[in-house]
Amino acid sequence: MSSVERRPQWMSTRMMLSPQVAQDNEELRLRTTFVALHKPVEGLYAMNGGDGLHSYAQNSSYQRGVVDVAKPIIQEEITTKLDIEQLSSTSQYNFRIADFGCSTGHNSFPAIQIIIQAIEKKIERERELQNFDYQVFFNDQVMNDFNTLFASLPPERKYYAAGVPGPFHGRLLPKDSLHFAYSSCALNWLSEVPKAVQDGTSRAWNEGKVHYTGAKKEVFDAYSNQYDKDITSFLNSRATEVVSGGLMALLVPAVPTFDHSETTYTTPTEMDVLGSCLMDMANKGRLSKAKVDSFNFPLYFIIPNELKAIIERNNNFSIERMEILNNPGKHSLRSANERASYLRAVFEGLLVNHFGSGIMDELFERYANKLEESSHFLDPDNEKSIIIFVLLKRTGDK
Amino acid sequence: MSSVERRPQWMSTRMMLSPQVAQDNEELRLRTTFVALHKPVEGLYAMNGGDGLHSYAQNSSYQRGVVDVAKPIIQEEITTKLDIEQLSSTSQYNFRIADFGCSTGHNSFPAIQIIIQAIEKKIERERELQNFDYQVFFNDQVMNDFNTLFASLPPERKYYAAGVPGPFHGRLLPKDSLHFAYSSCALNWLSEVPKAVQDGTSRAWNEGKVHYTGAKKEVFDAYSNQYDKDITSFLNSRATEVVSGGLMALLVPAVPTFDHSETTYTTPTEMDVLGSCLMDMANKGRLSKAKVDSFNFPLYFIIPNELKAIIERNNNFSIERMEILNNPGKHSLRSANERASYLRAVFEGLLVNHFGSGIMDELFERYANKLEESSHFLDPDNEKSIIIFVLLKRTGDK
Repeated sequence: MSSVERRPQWMSTRMMLSPQVAQDNEELRLRTTFVALHKPVEGLYAMNGGDGLHSYAQNSSYQRGVVDVAKPIIQEEITTKLDIEQLSSTSQYNFRIADFGCSTGHNSFPAIQIIIQAIEKKIERERELQNFDYQVFFNDQVMNDFNTLFASLPPERKYYAAGVPGPFHGRLLPKDSLHFAYSSCALNWLSEVPKAVQDGTSRAWNEGKVHYTGAKKEVFDAYSNQYDKDITSFLNSRATEVVSGGLMALLVPAVPTFDHSETTYTTPTEMDVLGSCLMDMANKGRLSKAKVDSFNFPLYFIIPNELKAIIERNNNFSIERMEILNNPGKHSLRSANERASYLRAVFEGLLVNHFGSGIMDELFERYANKLEESSHFLDPDNEKSIIIFVLLKRTGDK
Repeated sequence: MSSVERRPQWMSTRMMLSPQVAQDNEELRLRTTFVALHKPVEGLYAMNGGDGLHSYAQNSSYQRGVVDVAKPIIQEEITTKLDIEQLSSTSQYNFRIADFGCSTGHNSFPAIQIIIQAIEKKIERERELQNFDYQVFFNDQVMNDFNTLFASLPPERKYYAAGVPGPFHGRLLPKDSLHFAYSSCALNWLSEVPKAVQDGTSRAWNEGKVHYTGAKKEVFDAYSNQYDKDITSFLNSRATEVVSGGLMALLVPAVPTFDHSETTYTTPTEMDVLGSCLMDMANKGRLSKAKVDSFNFPLYFIIPNELKAIIERNNNFSIERMEILNNPGKHSLRSANERASYLRAVFEGLLVNHFGSGIMDELFERYANKLEESSHFLDPDNEKSIIIFVLLKRTGDK
């Protein structure tokens, strides 16, 4: 069976626009099926709350895989890089940790446990500092389901818990109050969709699409600039909040390279499948095409070298360690329905906010059907998303 | 019209048990109609969330009145008693405030604003200390509606906000991390119903009643001991959390004296009206009498001298000021329906937890009807509840 024959029917719209390119790049486009990862940031949407069928709590095994694979690295870095003596001089023996983009806590709690256990092991070795009080700040959007987060807190925890609502691209905590910052599967979310891609008069207008993947270079550039601005804002905010010598462990959903062709700057992904379902529904009159044109996912997947360049340019943190984790949780999502449930848990709030709740069942049913038709999208080995692990240390005397 | 003629029909059950006493004490029992105030603490119940008809947010004008009347006192105390120099030496110019028992924030936000404005005014006068970062911890039960709290945060606030879930009778924050503690209309809640009052074999068994008011001395004593234990636990927890020299402003729902007669240690209140409605429903077979016997409100209203004695015995805080605020918000609840809505917002979670949601509409309809029949319960001048304002300073070098 040739790749053309294997091409699912839903690709026809895009192929009509550029059939040759679509055919040539099909291997590429099918290989780059990174699933969309985690966390909204605009305040109008959040992961699905509660613990029901479509909840994020029940649909985040992918992100849990990220925590698991990062565990030994985090332990090692805390053992070797955390300067307890320096930190305890300013902390009055209280140690403050924050997770930026914690959702309902499902994957946050194990990560926090790993961090605190590693610190306790270090304290036990280095000197007698057993009377630390730990305080953990769980941050996510105002619209995040903090009620579920709080009800799910581990009863036997060794820390005082607090929830911090608000976008992590801005300030959330007092200056010099944080000793360890953590963020997993969250820094792929932009603070907002770049304005130009929704402006019909702009060269970057993203007509008929919902993301920069599979789109033209101008769209990609608008996203890329927004990401640069956002991550810099994140780093500046954390630079004020984290004490000198404090550590920050980031697990950033990313891609290895920006594949591109003559007409599209990056290859399409599962988000484009969702976009094509929306366009199908527009063509059937279930919603207006303008409604699809005015919707774009506020997501961006960086490549390692660009992230490194942005951090170095920011100059508030030294890079203590940086490595690629190869999509550790990708084998957790097997069937088309599982993938549809996953995307629904992550994106439903965002989509309902724009399209209303009436079309959700149909949309995700169409989505699951399209995936079902594509053996490539279903094969986790074709999934090329990566996780960048980066450990930063706050530099300077402040 | 004699007091006997004015006696509402619903009192007949209790009167059959002890008609003479009931008649003699009717003036007293009708005068002591303090409304039940605020905040659950057992973790299984909380003020009604959201902002709908029966929400606490829409039914807490009484508590708002408390904030208003306390405003000038809090301002004055911060101006005269807050030792900024002492606090800033340990705080690294971050100032941390906590509200214990904040519910959905409706009355907490104005109180926090009053506190921060007073501090800013003081800083402005005393020296140049303009670079304080304020962090405010909003505490209430795990089951509290923190989602509504976070969505309601004032957009123009001057502080970093955090939610802290859990019972305030225990530790919630790291040691020496708090500079100003506040609690309004919350310390009348016990950590649990005293076990003896629900134990059929105990002399303190509170058969056919739901509170110590209007009950025998053994029941009252069990409540009183529980309160002593709980408030001491609150003071010990705060003593660890509040820095030396830190202030704590408490607004405690209370009564001026413990009125009592030969058979009942305190006079009945509106909570007893609710209890009699439950008994009426038990008599009509709508629920079992055992269900009523096993339910008691975890609430206690202290008298000023006893509160003073407990604080002095605790020995962690000096009493800088103590005064009685005369029921400032009592005129805000006029009609029987308003009072029923108020009690429903406060108690529904607690009642549903024990009785199920099926009987709520009927229960509060009966309650409103009984109030309607009693001109005394409707007259706010017969309401004898008070608020004790007490300002404490954390003593000792720690």
